[in-house]
Amino acid sequence: MNLVTRRQMLATVGAAAGACALSSSKDIQAKPNTGKDNKPARAWKYSKLRPDYLAQQAYYATAKGHCMYGVFAPVMQQLGNKFGEPYISFPVDMMVYGAGGAGGWGSLCGALNGAAALTGLFVRDETQQKQLISKLFKWYETAKLPTFQPSKPFVKMAMPASISNSILCHMSVTKWCKVSGEKTHTKEQKERCKRLTADVTRKTVELLNAHFAAPHAAGPTRPPKPKGCVACHTAKGSTIQNSRGKMSCTSCHTVPGKHPKV
Amino acid sequence: MNLVTRRQMLATVGAAAGACALSSSKDIQAKPNTGKDNKPARAWKYSKLRPDYLAQQAYYATAKGHCMYGVFAPVMQQLGNKFGEPYISFPVDMMVYGAGGAGGWGSLCGALNGAAALTGLFVRDETQQKQLISKLFKWYETAKLPTFQPSKPFVKMAMPASISNSILCHMSVTKWCKVSGEKTHTKEQKERCKRLTADVTRKTVELLNAHFAAPHAAGPTRPPKPKGCVACHTAKGSTIQNSRGKMSCTSCHTVPGKHPKV
Repeated sequence: MNLVTRRQMLATVGAAAGACALSSSKDIQAKPNTGKDNKPARAWKYSKLRPDYLAQQAYYATAKGHCMYGVFAPVMQQLGNKFGEPYISFPVDMMVYGAGGAGGWGSLCGALNGAAALTGLFVRDETQQKQLISKLFKWYETAKLPTFQPSKPFVKMAMPASISNSILCHMSVTKWCKVSGEKTHTKEQKERCKRLTADVTRKTVELLNAHFAAPHAAGPTRPPKPKGCVACHTAKGSTIQNSRGKMSCTSCHTVPGKHPKV
Repeated sequence: MNLVTRRQMLATVGAAAGACALSSSKDIQAKPNTGKDNKPARAWKYSKLRPDYLAQQAYYATAKGHCMYGVFAPVMQQLGNKFGEPYISFPVDMMVYGAGGAGGWGSLCGALNGAAALTGLFVRDETQQKQLISKLFKWYETAKLPTFQPSKPFVKMAMPASISNSILCHMSVTKWCKVSGEKTHTKEQKERCKRLTADVTRKTVELLNAHFAAPHAAGPTRPPKPKGCVACHTAKGSTIQNSRGKMSCTSCHTVPGKHPKV
C-alpha cells in the first residue's frame, strides 16, 4: 500500500474549537413553519435518565437500526415510558438514515448525528444547543473509544480502542482499523461501532442531565476567542476567513514549515 | 496564506461511489423500540409535491431555522396541510441542530442532512433509502451550485456557483468562497447557502416524487461493483479494506505516483 501519509501533526496548532457562531440568535426566535396555521411545535420535555442503562440499551438498539437510531431510539423509548405521547409516536425508524455517516457515505458519525438530533429536540436555545453539541463532539474527537463493556456482547473480543481525531465516520472507523488491525465491514468493526454508540449515548445523557439540572451553567454564552487555525481562517473579521467549521484541522490538513506560527 | 495545496486530482481514480452496503437488509426488518410495548411507529405517507414551490419555501425557511430545517420544515408543512396529523406535530424545530454541518462543526451539509432525514422518514426500505441518498449526495458533489433564483432575494447579487466535490459543509463553503472571492460568515455566504438549500430541496422532492411514482424502478437492488479507490480500500474481501464511506476520495486524499493504477 503506497498511499501517502498526510497526517503531520502540527504541535503549535490548536484544534478548531471556538469557531464563530453560525448566525445571530435572532434567527431562532422566529416562529418555525410547522404545519397548519404556522403553529409552533409543542415543547418536548426532558427528564433525567440513567446514563449507564441508556448505554446498554443503545448497544442493543444499534443492532436493530444502526448507530444514529441506536442513540436516538432508546432515549425516546425511556421518555415514552415516562410521559407517553408524543414520544411514543415519534418515528424513530427514520433515524436509520444516519448509519455509516448518512446512508453509508462516511460523513458525520451516525451516533453523533443521533445525539445532536436529541440535543436539537430538547434544547431549543441555539447557543446552549451548540455548546452541548460542541462538548460532545470535542470529547468524541479526543477520547480513546470504545470503552463500553457489554454484559452480553454480540462479539466476544478484547476490544482495541483508538482516538479518532475526527467526528467523521470515515476517519473514525479507519483510525480504529489501523490501531486494531481489523478490516472494515467485519463483525469486529461492527461490534466496535455498537460499543462506540453506547459510549456516545452515555456521554449524551450525562450532558443532557447536567444541562437540565442547571440550564444556565452550561458555560459562557459567547464563544471563546478564536485561536489556532480558526483565528485566521474562520473568525469574523480575520485576514483570510475563507472557511467554516470546528472540526479538528490537523486530521485532514498539513501545514508547511513557512506557515505563520499561531 | 501559505497553506499547502493538497488537492491533486487523480484523473484515473473514480469517486468513491459503489461502496459496500452498511449491513445486511436483515437489520432493518427488526421491530424498532419506539415506545411502550415496543410498538412500531406508524408509517408516514408521502404525497407528490411541487419541486419549484418547495424550493422557494425552503429558501425562506432557511432564514428562520438554517439549512437542515430549511429543507425539512417546508416538506412537513405541505404534507401537514394535506394530511394534518402526525405531520403538523412533528417537532421540525429540532432540525435547527444540523446548521453549518451540525452545530456549526462543518461536517455533513445541513441541507443534505435534512434531505436524508426526509428520505429516512418516507422510505423505509433500507436499500432504496441508500440509493436515494446516494443519488442526492452524488449530485451535490458534482453539480455547480447554487442555481436557484429567488423572486424576492434577501441579498440582491450576481450569485457565483461552484462545484463542491464534497458533501461536507466545511469544504462546500470554502470552495464557494474561493470561487466567489467572498468571505465566510458574511451575508453573501449566507445567501449562497439559502439558495443552495433551495436547490437541495428541489432535487430531494424530485427524487422522492420519482421514487413514489415507481418505487421499484429506483435502480439495481445490489450496489454496483466497486471501482477506483474503494475497490481496494472499502470493498468486502479486498486486499486492504481499512476504510468506509462513499465520499469523493480526491477531495481530501492525494495519491502518490507509485500508487497502483485502478
